[in-house]
Amino acid sequence: MIPTIEWTEDNKVKMIDQTVLPHELKFLEFTDYRDVATSIKVMNIRGAPAIGVAAAFGMALATIEFKSLSKDKFLSSMKEAAEIIKNTRPTASNLFWAVDRVWRIIKDFPDNPQTLSDLVVEEAKIMAQEDITVNKNIGKNGAKLLNDGDVVLTHCNAGSLATVQYGTALAPVRAAIEDGKKISVIADETRPRLQGARLTAYELQYDKIPVKVISDTSSGLLMRLGKVDKVIVGTDRVSSDAVFNKIGTYLVALAAKDNDIPFYVAAPTSTLSLQDTVDDVTIEQRDATEVSNVLGKVRIVPEGVECLNYAFDITPFRLVSGIITEDGVFTPEEMLSKYKK
Amino acid sequence: MIPTIEWTEDNKVKMIDQTVLPHELKFLEFTDYRDVATSIKVMNIRGAPAIGVAAAFGMALATIEFKSLSKDKFLSSMKEAAEIIKNTRPTASNLFWAVDRVWRIIKDFPDNPQTLSDLVVEEAKIMAQEDITVNKNIGKNGAKLLNDGDVVLTHCNAGSLATVQYGTALAPVRAAIEDGKKISVIADETRPRLQGARLTAYELQYDKIPVKVISDTSSGLLMRLGKVDKVIVGTDRVSSDAVFNKIGTYLVALAAKDNDIPFYVAAPTSTLSLQDTVDDVTIEQRDATEVSNVLGKVRIVPEGVECLNYAFDITPFRLVSGIITEDGVFTPEEMLSKYKK
Repeated sequence: MIPTIEWTEDNKVKMIDQTVLPHELKFLEFTDYRDVATSIKVMNIRGAPAIGVAAAFGMALATIEFKSLSKDKFLSSMKEAAEIIKNTRPTASNLFWAVDRVWRIIKDFPDNPQTLSDLVVEEAKIMAQEDITVNKNIGKNGAKLLNDGDVVLTHCNAGSLATVQYGTALAPVRAAIEDGKKISVIADETRPRLQGARLTAYELQYDKIPVKVISDTSSGLLMRLGKVDKVIVGTDRVSSDAVFNKIGTYLVALAAKDNDIPFYVAAPTSTLSLQDTVDDVTIEQRDATEVSNVLGKVRIVPEGVECLNYAFDITPFRLVSGIITEDGVFTPEEMLSKYKK
Repeated sequence: MIPTIEWTEDNKVKMIDQTVLPHELKFLEFTDYRDVATSIKVMNIRGAPAIGVAAAFGMALATIEFKSLSKDKFLSSMKEAAEIIKNTRPTASNLFWAVDRVWRIIKDFPDNPQTLSDLVVEEAKIMAQEDITVNKNIGKNGAKLLNDGDVVLTHCNAGSLATVQYGTALAPVRAAIEDGKKISVIADETRPRLQGARLTAYELQYDKIPVKVISDTSSGLLMRLGKVDKVIVGTDRVSSDAVFNKIGTYLVALAAKDNDIPFYVAAPTSTLSLQDTVDDVTIEQRDATEVSNVLGKVRIVPEGVECLNYAFDITPFRLVSGIITEDGVFTPEEMLSKYKK
């Protein structure tokens, strides 16, 4: 596993450019928070936990840029930076969670931008470290759900590449394998951006974990044929009634339910947004060319035909067998009673 | 609508090459039945009714090739032709239906290959004509299910391009529009071969019927959001307990059920194979490169990662609201009692 995103010693944000995977392993380095915001928007980096850390790193870069300004100018510039970063992707709650966490420090220490900048940089680095710890705990908790020989189906990429390292949905797979169990993965290709085919397959192959890729259309049949033991997916936000995750997740959950296959959601508590209900959440609509032109390369739809491109799916709690957090595995009801204030 | 396949005046089989749509409208002409068999296998032509007619035309070409042989040699050569044609695609029952229908003539008139050839050519042409009539009746019967303003979601292409003309799943849409209703279509792109994005979008745009394309991952969300009124799909085979259709159909049916949206299957009686149960049907597995390389052009999966490519899905009757045949609209139970011998 290569770190997906890191803060370098010379105060740069370094990340894997996930748009060119799996064919090329290329790194991007940024010193301007606006470029970090763009990298989130165009999905050089993606995955709820990873973009949370990217947002924190972006805020940290902004404090460095503005630290010689007056207090008022510093605050107004930081507010603008926060808005730009939060507006990159409307559905993922980690983005808001990360910016808000940084903002609490800014609010607490408003008098010395210089010191404040050091504190924010430190906090962002801690958040990156915490992400790995959280994921390892999700792995430990989730690994107990997996039996030796299990085939785990996953949708999109909620692996190491969706986090700083180790992954959320793939963490239980990694941990079970570390425990000596034989586990293999079936990865939905995950149209339109093919994060399953490109990223999940890449990182599992890289770490020598057996993986097979299928079209998104195939998960139901494979479950019917008895070729899937468990489903684990990640999430971009958990509201009080549903799980928001990559488009297509709801179909996978329906098929799991129809075939009595457990459907688990790996959710670091930073993705819990339990004050929200389904109606509060904006489903991001992305550029239709992601559908009409596969990876910007092959046009598959006749010129002039419109495409719709909703990025996230709504999976109601009734289809969810368990939610795996860094604290344990909970039914949706248990999760609500534990975390909902 | 352009005829998908036709028998020319100079005894050739002419068909649209569907592998290069939507970017190019190219025609293929064959005089050798082996080339027709190959065209079915590599999917220059596809769609259960269309490959049924292609199979009959292939048999007709074979009779022309062998008509100067002795009776014994003629029969053994025709047997070989029938085997080659039937072995192109294992799931579609129209292939077997068409070859068997032609074979009945061969069995009845075994003494004069010359006359026999004329009869088989005539029969194949009749089958092509019947296909259009059957589809128009499916359209008339299915149109009654559609209300003015309905949005119909379909999977794969069971349109004009899957038949000689007019389509099966798209026939009710065409007929309802001819009746003056305003109907629009949402087309699943239908990975891996993208028949929805390429073919359904192409033929509907060609005929000025409103169509939008979505990734296969999106149907569930659109249904949840109330953006789909009816689902109509085609079928390659209906057994006594399930509908076999393009991979992904089962997921669409589950989502329709979960959202109380009617799920209809347009099935010419030539696709009914009611002596079979699920266990009798072979699910065709096609080359994994159809998944790993989109349209043979863009590789989306890391080198060395295996892909699975099942071509058909099993949708149990409990998810089917109605089966539309040329005779009417039936629940699966009604359909069984009407057609099962």
